[in-house]
Amino acid sequence: MRRYLSGIIAVLAVMVLTSSSLQAKKIRWRLAMSWPTSLTPISSPAIKLAKYMKEMSDGKFIIKVEGAEKTKAALGVFDMVKGGSYQMGHTTSYFYIGKDPSLVWFTTVPWGMTKDEQYAWFYYGNGMKYMKKVYAKYGMLAFPGGNTGVQMGGWFRKEIKSVDDLKGLKMRIPGFAGKVMAKLGVSVVNIPGGELYTSLDRGTIDALEWVGPGMDIKMGFYKVAPYYYTGWHEPGAEALFYVNKKAFEKLPQKYKTMLVTGMKAVAADMFMENFADSVTAWQKMIKEMPNIKVKTFPISVLKAMKKATDEVLNEYAAKDPTFKEIMNDYMSYQKKARVWTMMSEYYYLKASQEVQNVK
Amino acid sequence: MRRYLSGIIAVLAVMVLTSSSLQAKKIRWRLAMSWPTSLTPISSPAIKLAKYMKEMSDGKFIIKVEGAEKTKAALGVFDMVKGGSYQMGHTTSYFYIGKDPSLVWFTTVPWGMTKDEQYAWFYYGNGMKYMKKVYAKYGMLAFPGGNTGVQMGGWFRKEIKSVDDLKGLKMRIPGFAGKVMAKLGVSVVNIPGGELYTSLDRGTIDALEWVGPGMDIKMGFYKVAPYYYTGWHEPGAEALFYVNKKAFEKLPQKYKTMLVTGMKAVAADMFMENFADSVTAWQKMIKEMPNIKVKTFPISVLKAMKKATDEVLNEYAAKDPTFKEIMNDYMSYQKKARVWTMMSEYYYLKASQEVQNVK
Repeated sequence: MRRYLSGIIAVLAVMVLTSSSLQAKKIRWRLAMSWPTSLTPISSPAIKLAKYMKEMSDGKFIIKVEGAEKTKAALGVFDMVKGGSYQMGHTTSYFYIGKDPSLVWFTTVPWGMTKDEQYAWFYYGNGMKYMKKVYAKYGMLAFPGGNTGVQMGGWFRKEIKSVDDLKGLKMRIPGFAGKVMAKLGVSVVNIPGGELYTSLDRGTIDALEWVGPGMDIKMGFYKVAPYYYTGWHEPGAEALFYVNKKAFEKLPQKYKTMLVTGMKAVAADMFMENFADSVTAWQKMIKEMPNIKVKTFPISVLKAMKKATDEVLNEYAAKDPTFKEIMNDYMSYQKKARVWTMMSEYYYLKASQEVQNVK
Repeated sequence: MRRYLSGIIAVLAVMVLTSSSLQAKKIRWRLAMSWPTSLTPISSPAIKLAKYMKEMSDGKFIIKVEGAEKTKAALGVFDMVKGGSYQMGHTTSYFYIGKDPSLVWFTTVPWGMTKDEQYAWFYYGNGMKYMKKVYAKYGMLAFPGGNTGVQMGGWFRKEIKSVDDLKGLKMRIPGFAGKVMAKLGVSVVNIPGGELYTSLDRGTIDALEWVGPGMDIKMGFYKVAPYYYTGWHEPGAEALFYVNKKAFEKLPQKYKTMLVTGMKAVAADMFMENFADSVTAWQKMIKEMPNIKVKTFPISVLKAMKKATDEVLNEYAAKDPTFKEIMNDYMSYQKKARVWTMMSEYYYLKASQEVQNVK
């Protein structure tokens, strides 16, 4: 009997231990961000995702989020997630065009799609298929992680009246748009974020681009460069979540779905937060500095920017068949999508403006 | 010793039973939709939410989704969720303005906010606070559940050249916009969806509004009414998830977070699906019927619509202090938000159009 009882105890003990060890087994991931933890709304998606994952998993899936202030490697996220030292990252794709130019198509390009058009391309066109294919080369999965909407064209100390005014202009404008501006004679300079305000104030640079009112206000540029140009170069910049492919594939389905669902929710939320921040910030800026002038570049300048953009893109396409394939698909989708954007959103905004103007 | 062993067995047995009964306990909810299951993309959010909840909960949270074809009560969702016979619903707020006019602010109003503006108001302005307050009266929680974007102004058999052309025009345009059109002399008629095509074809009605190309194409209107007017009356119609408050409050935190996160993800997705459907459908329609003309109402007509909208809203506001309070907050947010929409999205689209037009 005692032996029999011992058997029962053993079986039950195994059941309890199995059950409780399963319960106790925590998944601990690390996520590296390309921005400081305090840089909302761009740092918000990763921070919120970690919170939701913890809650949804009953504390069993913990993501430790590390900002660039900790990792000291804002542009190292790609390699950290690829190598597996971090299971996840929150960054942008176009930071890494030096490694692979095709990556640009998953953030934004000058004169490209708006966020609505691009999301339709990602999820209901071929966007995610290409993203999966390109990132698979690096052992990673990538997912949309929040959009800034149309970014402003930047802060200028002087008005731009012609293409000639761009010649020799010293401007901080990184990445693809910088290559376009260089073609127009702009002297593209690279200055760390912390020195930008002083450089603009002292005239060391004549202009710079950042994001939009919500993020620009913290930098103070509106106090020293009164011309705020409307956007052309980053019409819908998407942040991306990176996930190490092997780490993802080891997860049970429930955690995969939590991650994918969570990423989509926080991505949507980042746009909202940035939009709301911009609404509030713009009211504050214009009140404090009523001399800020919102300007659109003259049509001759816009045309030159478009021509230079096409040249830069075609140069890459000539050298890289994957770049070309994605570009053709992107352009073809943009053309169709834009017709609908104009029919719906654009004509509504235009009609609203006209109706309000003539009370 | 035997006694001692029995004690251990008893304790272990309780642990096993507790653990496995907790594991086995399934939550089964029902969700009623205001639309047939087949009516994508508007039926997509609820169907996807149920799928994600099942996966995230490891099969322990099951939501049975029932379309209007099953419940036979498209407009009964409010009462079904309020009463608790369904724990959730997927519907729109403005279907129920007969019960409470304030509900209109959580779907859309003529000349109101775009979806981006409205989402910023919901989540970073006072929108969700008001939504919570208003729906608490009915024992429900409500959450954004997908947006259509700017809806088209409708299909017209004849061109509208002046306000006079609206007088006596027989049009299917329900809800708030119908009240506005009635003020302009339109004879607003109510015809079941299944009879609309024939009515428009035979001239029993002169015009109707539906949604946008993606959903309109299935109805065939483009074959019989060639004037497709741009939107003014539903600039960002939001579907809502309803949740019975008592049912929600009984849930453990993990399921609450799964639901809230899931609803946000599927809401974002519905807009994308509808946008992509519209892109594709419009290409198909215009190819099949090249005589379709996209028109914007003349400025005199738009102004009359705006004036009539203000009258209708002010009439409600005069009778209902809650309506007035929400209206004032909404209008004040819209005014600020629109400045940013114009600076960012609008001027980008305008510049792109100009650049493309002059190649």
